Amino acid sequence: MSEVLQRFRPLFSPRSITFIGASRYPMKWGFIVLANLVNGGFKGKIYPVNPRENEIMNLKAYHSVDEVPEVTDLAVIVTPPSSVPPLIEDCSRKGIKAAVVITAGFAEVGQEGHRLQLDMADIAQRSDILLVGPNCNGIICPPSSLYPWMPPGVYPNPGPLAIVSQSGNVGVSVISRGMSRGFGFSHFVGSGNEAHLRLADFIEFFGEDPQIKVILSYVEGIREGKRFLEVAKKVTKTKPIVMIKAGETDAGARAAYSHTAALSGSETVFAAAVRQAGIIRASDIHELFDISAAFIRQPLPEGKRVGIVTDGGGWGVLAADACTKAGLEVAQLPNELITEMDGFLPPWWSRGNPVDLVSGMRQGDVKNAIEVLLRCPQVDGVIFLGMRGSLAMQDGGSSSLLNIVTSSSGDFFSEILQMMEEYGKPIILASDTSFGNIDMSKDLASTLGVKGMVCYNLPDQAAVAFSSLAQYGEYLRENGYQ
Amino acid sequence: MSEVLQRFRPLFSPRSITFIGASRYPMKWGFIVLANLVNGGFKGKIYPVNPRENEIMNLKAYHSVDEVPEVTDLAVIVTPPSSVPPLIEDCSRKGIKAAVVITAGFAEVGQEGHRLQLDMADIAQRSDILLVGPNCNGIICPPSSLYPWMPPGVYPNPGPLAIVSQSGNVGVSVISRGMSRGFGFSHFVGSGNEAHLRLADFIEFFGEDPQIKVILSYVEGIREGKRFLEVAKKVTKTKPIVMIKAGETDAGARAAYSHTAALSGSETVFAAAVRQAGIIRASDIHELFDISAAFIRQPLPEGKRVGIVTDGGGWGVLAADACTKAGLEVAQLPNELITEMDGFLPPWWSRGNPVDLVSGMRQGDVKNAIEVLLRCPQVDGVIFLGMRGSLAMQDGGSSSLLNIVTSSSGDFFSEILQMMEEYGKPIILASDTSFGNIDMSKDLASTLGVKGMVCYNLPDQAAVAFSSLAQYGEYLRENGYQ
Repeated sequence: MSEVLQRFRPLFSPRSITFIGASRYPMKWGFIVLANLVNGGFKGKIYPVNPRENEIMNLKAYHSVDEVPEVTDLAVIVTPPSSVPPLIEDCSRKGIKAAVVITAGFAEVGQEGHRLQLDMADIAQRSDILLVGPNCNGIICPPSSLYPWMPPGVYPNPGPLAIVSQSGNVGVSVISRGMSRGFGFSHFVGSGNEAHLRLADFIEFFGEDPQIKVILSYVEGIREGKRFLEVAKKVTKTKPIVMIKAGETDAGARAAYSHTAALSGSETVFAAAVRQAGIIRASDIHELFDISAAFIRQPLPEGKRVGIVTDGGGWGVLAADACTKAGLEVAQLPNELITEMDGFLPPWWSRGNPVDLVSGMRQGDVKNAIEVLLRCPQVDGVIFLGMRGSLAMQDGGSSSLLNIVTSSSGDFFSEILQMMEEYGKPIILASDTSFGNIDMSKDLASTLGVKGMVCYNLPDQAAVAFSSLAQYGEYLRENGYQ
Repeated sequence: MSEVLQRFRPLFSPRSITFIGASRYPMKWGFIVLANLVNGGFKGKIYPVNPRENEIMNLKAYHSVDEVPEVTDLAVIVTPPSSVPPLIEDCSRKGIKAAVVITAGFAEVGQEGHRLQLDMADIAQRSDILLVGPNCNGIICPPSSLYPWMPPGVYPNPGPLAIVSQSGNVGVSVISRGMSRGFGFSHFVGSGNEAHLRLADFIEFFGEDPQIKVILSYVEGIREGKRFLEVAKKVTKTKPIVMIKAGETDAGARAAYSHTAALSGSETVFAAAVRQAGIIRASDIHELFDISAAFIRQPLPEGKRVGIVTDGGGWGVLAADACTKAGLEVAQLPNELITEMDGFLPPWWSRGNPVDLVSGMRQGDVKNAIEVLLRCPQVDGVIFLGMRGSLAMQDGGSSSLLNIVTSSSGDFFSEILQMMEEYGKPIILASDTSFGNIDMSKDLASTLGVKGMVCYNLPDQAAVAFSSLAQYGEYLRENGYQ
């Protein structure tokens, strides 16, 4: 195990946990976070600490850190701000190796909080404690069944995505979007004010953990720019980092300072630096997940020339616009390819790119059209739009669309995966997932999400995902990493 | 009834319908569209026409238009292209006043199709038949229980939104998004190749129909630019028109031509013209619905100064960025207002705009904070973010979020509506609608959609909605319409 992985083990795979500020009152964070930890199925011992309680949630409670009968790997702290530095001191004396400080009211609220935060960081630094926070919503590590965080009753499954977020809220939004699409997460860290551990530390760890395929981040301000860029450059050699940078505008920057005491810095400088480091920018919360999901199974395209297959003209036109706006090219199809498609497609197909099958298409047509495009050297990958229509048609217009998505389309999706692997080119799917009153999103999530695939809801989202894959592929090639 | 309303009555409120090309084979459009018409609950008589059948779907079938024992208001036609012009001739001879031609294979496929299309338009023009299509997916008018269109089994409820779309597919996508949010529609028209009736005709009609509050449109090309702009200018005096213009890029324009034989024209000229006509542009399918929904209940703001109330810092920062990017101002709060909020908000609030209540907020706080902002003359409206967090907290972190959304929050939403009316300023809501494995979207749809309200899923969507309201308000004021 590498030094970095070793160092973070007490934080993400603790053998036991001291929970400081545990409460038996359901409206208190000391209750909610502890309940998440307990109900999330953590396998090791949990020691609640509260000076006035002897038992909380059927666990024996201790009046101080000192009284806890074991040296735990991790401490979780939810007590008031002024109590935190002395408690970190207690943890240090005890030999605890990592602490998550959820409490808010530090640098983000003024001078006095800032002083407390410096004190706390100082103790952590001196005693070699890994300190997360303060002013954060906790961490999770589903592979360790570890959920000491604020959102009540939310337990993502393990999976290949890791998130570090300077906003807990935004992190939970991204995770909720992922969960609703059937995706799992290896880690989440609400890094909060980053008194001690910073963005760069988590990204470095995520870079080395072999479970993790894609790193997601929400950033308001970067505290050690140089170190961050060094780490990012190292990590992006092997794994994509997808990032929202908030506080881009003056009003946003002011809000960021009052939120996590983050200095957003110059957008121009930041933009240039992250581009240099191969980081992919996302423009909103949904896009952060959407782009990241593409990297799990899709091969990186060798260029920007997209073949579009659609079952409806309008979606095709919008996709052509969206691809162009995202910096992609709608591939010119060679005449031989058009002749080949003439051989099996119905006579009304568009005879160009987008390959418009004009509703009423048969499933075999879709598969064959995609394959012909993938085989073409002038096409770097495919966007396929509108399963909705094709699925509806196969069903002859009855109400059992859902069955099709979950049964025969299971095969369809396996074929898509197989073609992606065989040709080494991406196939991005986009479709409405509701059709009138029928909502297929859950079924698509359970069919696709488990395969690490996603069905986007707009041609625009598909184009952005494709363009992000192309951008990262280009970065790797230009720097000789691939 | 106005002349325009009178003229369109046979199309949207027909007393009876001749269905030409009816089929008893479930994979045929002649079956699917007829099934939609029948199962959609159309109250008048339906006469299937098919030269080889005597009964279809328990309806007596006729071998020709001539044999139908009644002069129906409307004909729906799904027969092959070359049969269409003579059939329109039959309809004309019979005295039928309106026809929807769903059949494709006209101007969009080449010379011969183009000729057929001209013929058909010519007959319609001569005999004063209102002709929709060809190459379209039909029309619907839920207030008339009229659903002669292609998407199988999709029956939107009546409501204040009307759509004209040059792509059937895109229209259904917009309608599906609306349905999933609890919204209804007064009309949908897939205008297809627009051989006879064009965009401007439908928009003119929508402008006059008092049931309709907002007009949505998806446009690939505009056929009579001058007339279109005249109509649009007249209609936007009293109703907003929200529009996607597809084919903005070269690749998109090529795709549009092959789709509906539409000439997309110059984006620069178009952009200037629609701005002049007060039309609001949407950049994608979701935005088309999202912006339109805002116009149903929200008062138009008198300016661009937004107050933001959030239960989480990250969402607040993103909202401040999004407002600025959408051309809005994050309002500077006067000192008196901050002092007033100090009086009732918990001490940790952000003391600025965004008004960040930092999780753990109480419902009363939200309402009071919004009201203080609405009362402030320097604030033109409010964006409220993140009901998710506040709802979770009120519940003390258990699993019955859903109950809260549907019960006590029912009151909360009524209070929101009341405040909007009292202060004449918009309040835009945005929140995740899924939280871990809990999906609140259906409950929000049934609580909010019926009130004509929507909960956006991103701060960015809320900012765009607010900005569209502000833009339209400004247009009305500048032109002296308000």
